[in-house]
Amino acid sequence: MQAAVLTAEELERLLAQEFPEAFHDGSGLSILDVWNGGARVRQGPRRNATRPGGTVSGPVLMGLADVCIYVAILASIGWVPLAVTTNLNINFLKKPAPGALIAEARLLKLGRRLAVGEVGIRAEGEDDLVAHATSTYSIPPRT
Amino acid sequence: MQAAVLTAEELERLLAQEFPEAFHDGSGLSILDVWNGGARVRQGPRRNATRPGGTVSGPVLMGLADVCIYVAILASIGWVPLAVTTNLNINFLKKPAPGALIAEARLLKLGRRLAVGEVGIRAEGEDDLVAHATSTYSIPPRT
Amino acid sequence: MQAAVLTAEELERLLAQEFPEAFHDGSGLSILDVWNGGARVRQGPRRNATRPGGTVSGPVLMGLADVCIYVAILASIGWVPLAVTTNLNINFLKKPAPGALIAEARLLKLGRRLAVGEVGIRAEGEDDLVAHATSTYSIPPRT
Amino acid sequence: MQAAVLTAEELERLLAQEFPEAFHDGSGLSILDVWNGGARVRQGPRRNATRPGGTVSGPVLMGLADVCIYVAILASIGWVPLAVTTNLNINFLKKPAPGALIAEARLLKLGRRLAVGEVGIRAEGEDDLVAHATSTYSIPPRT
Repeated sequence: MQAAVLTAEELERLLAQEFPEAFHDGSGLSILDVWNGGARVRQGPRRNATRPGGTVSGPVLMGLADVCIYVAILASIGWVPLAVTTNLNINFLKKPAPGALIAEARLLKLGRRLAVGEVGIRAEGEDDLVAHATSTYSIPPRT
Repeated sequence: MQAAVLTAEELERLLAQEFPEAFHDGSGLSILDVWNGGARVRQGPRRNATRPGGTVSGPVLMGLADVCIYVAILASIGWVPLAVTTNLNINFLKKPAPGALIAEARLLKLGRRLAVGEVGIRAEGEDDLVAHATSTYSIPPRT
Repeated sequence: MQAAVLTAEELERLLAQEFPEAFHDGSGLSILDVWNGGARVRQGPRRNATRPGGTVSGPVLMGLADVCIYVAILASIGWVPLAVTTNLNINFLKKPAPGALIAEARLLKLGRRLAVGEVGIRAEGEDDLVAHATSTYSIPPRT
Repeated sequence: MQAAVLTAEELERLLAQEFPEAFHDGSGLSILDVWNGGARVRQGPRRNATRPGGTVSGPVLMGLADVCIYVAILASIGWVPLAVTTNLNINFLKKPAPGALIAEARLLKLGRRLAVGEVGIRAEGEDDLVAHATSTYSIPPRT
């Protein structure tokens, strides 16, 4: 497991500065671990994000999938905040129990212009996948 | 254009009752039109949903795409709130200007067990697509 | 409907020269029409491509979807044979009757580096969609 | 690693009987291994399937991805030939060198009505992924 270019702490600080709407104290997001080619992100329980019966809504899962792969890319290539998601494909596999979610991302490709990753999301402490996504990011030319 | 089974007003009322976390006064969502096989939904500007530079974040676009196809299904088959999204694939095509978004969904298939739809999202008043998604829903057996 | 940069005849000739494994006399592919931003391609019946019961196999539908969007891109930007598919997402909606298939593609985005298109496939002479796909292509820098 | 319900040999025999257009002596497909929840399938080099420069064409990769997940499902639930692909999403990551391909599939969900799997494809003997796909199958009611 090769070392990441940025640590979880550095990434949390940079993301809170640049994307305060997404990474703020109430967002419930925390970066548990990063390495070269991957990341693990926790989404704490959020108010207003549950469906009847107490399950977590789709947009929360989609947002978490997107963030986790984005963090894996930044951890692997350094701070390139203008990398943008161009495609995201998500399969919803199982209704999650109420509570926190753990996402773990793995990069499938890290090219000069495009990065592709996959991510599995589980309810904290459980084995079954709640959702699985793959996503593509366009990386701006670095000067 | 065949008539919808439920009107936009009926759908807004039912959705606010059943999914108050998603359809509430502050959500900015309104159903502009529904017909048999499609729907048009407006997402008003949301605080906390912009990225640096003023553009709308990915989760808002993903949530709007999901809601719009869901509304098109309910308008076409009636009130089946337990229909669930099983897959969503979205392409982000252009950074939207700040402001409201208009999503227009069209069902590609409406089977007994599965429905598939596509949706295009534009900034209000503009022609270019901001995002395009296709999504699949599992429809529970009706008794 | 703006004119295409290359005609259907020019495209068929160039594709047969450059991709003889895909575009040959026995492939059953013919370009029916092209315009700026779209294309219509016919896949004649192919031996060895049917499933039990006489329906067309998945790879034929996936290949046809890919080719049709590729033709729409070339018709719109000119001969750039090194454009490559980076992502394809297809929904299979209905078993096609035996016989020819008609694919119609429409570009959703035509950028400098990425093009995104959607395509609907029908059995010839029928209204219902057999399959629907969206696909992304990476366009090499032009000099 | 739980045992599969059907062995690789049984699956090859059944597939050759039921889908002779896809599994025949010249198809180059062989099932290397199956287990409960996964499968590994080899695609030998095929004539007429290369692109200029000798790389394997997209439809071959898409077909191999589809077959490998299908085999993983059959190995896990038994012979249900009427299971059909409803969605396939593939990312093309790297041009494969000429030669054989190895696909390895893993089921993400195996429900009563829907199965979802992912598959990675590599050139034989290499580490990098050539393509990665996720796919959904509709399983007919069993009586």
